[in-house]
Amino acid sequence: MAKKNKSALSEKKGVSISETTNPNSIKSYKENRKTEIASEILIEGILKRDITILARAITLIESKNPTHAHQAKTIIEACLPHAHNSVRIGITGVPGVGKSTFIEALGKHLTDLGKRVAVLAIDPSSSITKGSILGDKTRMEQLAKNNNAFIRPSASGESLGGVARTTRETTILCEAAGFDVILIETVGVGQSETAVHSMVDFFLLLKLPGAGDELQGMKRGIIEMADAIAINKADGDNLKPAKLAQTEFKRALHLYPEKDSQWQPQVLLCSAINGTGIDDIWKMILDFVKATTKNGYFNKKRNKQSEYWLIQTIESQLKSRFFEQPKIKKELDKQLKRIAENKTTAFAAADYLLSLE
Amino acid sequence: MAKKNKSALSEKKGVSISETTNPNSIKSYKENRKTEIASEILIEGILKRDITILARAITLIESKNPTHAHQAKTIIEACLPHAHNSVRIGITGVPGVGKSTFIEALGKHLTDLGKRVAVLAIDPSSSITKGSILGDKTRMEQLAKNNNAFIRPSASGESLGGVARTTRETTILCEAAGFDVILIETVGVGQSETAVHSMVDFFLLLKLPGAGDELQGMKRGIIEMADAIAINKADGDNLKPAKLAQTEFKRALHLYPEKDSQWQPQVLLCSAINGTGIDDIWKMILDFVKATTKNGYFNKKRNKQSEYWLIQTIESQLKSRFFEQPKIKKELDKQLKRIAENKTTAFAAADYLLSLE
Repeated sequence: MAKKNKSALSEKKGVSISETTNPNSIKSYKENRKTEIASEILIEGILKRDITILARAITLIESKNPTHAHQAKTIIEACLPHAHNSVRIGITGVPGVGKSTFIEALGKHLTDLGKRVAVLAIDPSSSITKGSILGDKTRMEQLAKNNNAFIRPSASGESLGGVARTTRETTILCEAAGFDVILIETVGVGQSETAVHSMVDFFLLLKLPGAGDELQGMKRGIIEMADAIAINKADGDNLKPAKLAQTEFKRALHLYPEKDSQWQPQVLLCSAINGTGIDDIWKMILDFVKATTKNGYFNKKRNKQSEYWLIQTIESQLKSRFFEQPKIKKELDKQLKRIAENKTTAFAAADYLLSLE
Repeated sequence: MAKKNKSALSEKKGVSISETTNPNSIKSYKENRKTEIASEILIEGILKRDITILARAITLIESKNPTHAHQAKTIIEACLPHAHNSVRIGITGVPGVGKSTFIEALGKHLTDLGKRVAVLAIDPSSSITKGSILGDKTRMEQLAKNNNAFIRPSASGESLGGVARTTRETTILCEAAGFDVILIETVGVGQSETAVHSMVDFFLLLKLPGAGDELQGMKRGIIEMADAIAINKADGDNLKPAKLAQTEFKRALHLYPEKDSQWQPQVLLCSAINGTGIDDIWKMILDFVKATTKNGYFNKKRNKQSEYWLIQTIESQLKSRFFEQPKIKKELDKQLKRIAENKTTAFAAADYLLSLE
């Protein structure tokens, strides 16, 4: 895919950025990928759907270099007016449920329909556990080769907040690059589902056949977040337990209060490996988009999500700004010790620490 | 009860605070409750288990007057070395489950065993809904008259954070005043269960007979927090459904992962109105205390709770300090508008707002 895009780009003529304001031509960039590349070129490349340029811009977003951060901001702001014309779908499920195969199947179905699909991931654990999702593109071999698909693994070595930020910003760039569907996969560790849920329009939970016992290990919060459950591997001998699981999950979902979206979560069967049931899942997602666009929830939710990330980012910054001061770190330890010795209360200690700033 | 304590106090001789340093003698305090009273008198009164003095000190804790806050701090710190010798029990359940009657029954059982019992409440909603718990002491008529019991309703007109702080501080004073058991009731609205759970040793959930449907409305998070479920009103015709509910809840509790305490939550039956099953509940709580003291969890949890409240208080203060600045309030609205218009991202807006401070 990248190869084809590169040659497409080589054929492009007269990129409208003068060599004077921009010493880095696309040509020189092709010669040396390490060269800095001007924001204008990146923006234009993204809007012209150049995948190599898109990937380069995402690298800037992920960079910890302050110059890059500044450039990333310029690019994101330029892309914003061209973004938002997509459906953002979050996909979660325990390891072994077949997320990669499912994304391959859904991706194929969508590109067959003429859609362009970007696959991102929230995987803050990848640097620690090395159990990275998407890290190995070969797990989505077919999709990776597809011209209308773009797969980008999660940046590694980042906190959840960091990954969430880069993924949301990457979504904007992908949308500006004309991707119609953004699939955001999460490994289902810790708070990553909440993060993904707070950045997608539709949240899909993948499950395996064999309910009953299944309900045991289930994090109940995840079920509450789901707009639909797809029971994967519903094929062959699994079909009967899958149908049973479907009934159980339908019953379980009815126990939850109605969602703000007024959408009743669905439970569908599919077999990603055989490609069955995938079309129904996509049709259901379109029904969701239609219904929530009509009742105003679709845009309302996106605005609420922005507000959430705004507040979330500020709060997390306020905390790290405070607790990372050497003076506070030292005094915090002292105060915790004093609390354990019953010499002060948590509240008095908090007042004291706050007075130090 | 208050009356008896007053006379006990009147008989006391030579309170070791000189009239020079302390113009407010207990006598003059008796004559005029509005008079300021010196911290030393209050501390001594609390340690001597004077309920009138204890109540007065709690009022200082609840006061919003900065002078009172300073005095409260002095008193709490003096009480701290004498506190912590109690079992703190959180009690929750939906309205109608019979919390007051249950607390009456448990309180009676405990005082019959020679224990001294303080009943507090986390009820941040009382000022709004007027549906205050404990507000009307007549709901615990017998216990209110009991010499070895002390009932203190939640301060009204406070945020949850505010109520949580005063309740935790009140607990310290009650413990210093020799109360062996602190019962903290919560009305079960919003986050109040989490707050209570974070300040007690044992968290008891009261339920009604008739499971099945019951599981529907249940906030699942609450069940996860419970160290035990007591099915109340298990009497007469209710006994059969109560036993059914017991089985269902036992099964449900087994689905949760093992607790850090290594305690397997119990499901017991009781009838607060008939006083049956109450002794078993108390025995179970003692078993819990024994087991968790032995494995070190009891103290570990109290330290964790202090740490939680320390961090919680700081974070909530950092947030209000930041967001309550008029400059920030104004700019926040502007930025939210810009986000809705796709002119900026949540992250860029957050960075900008943080740069204003």
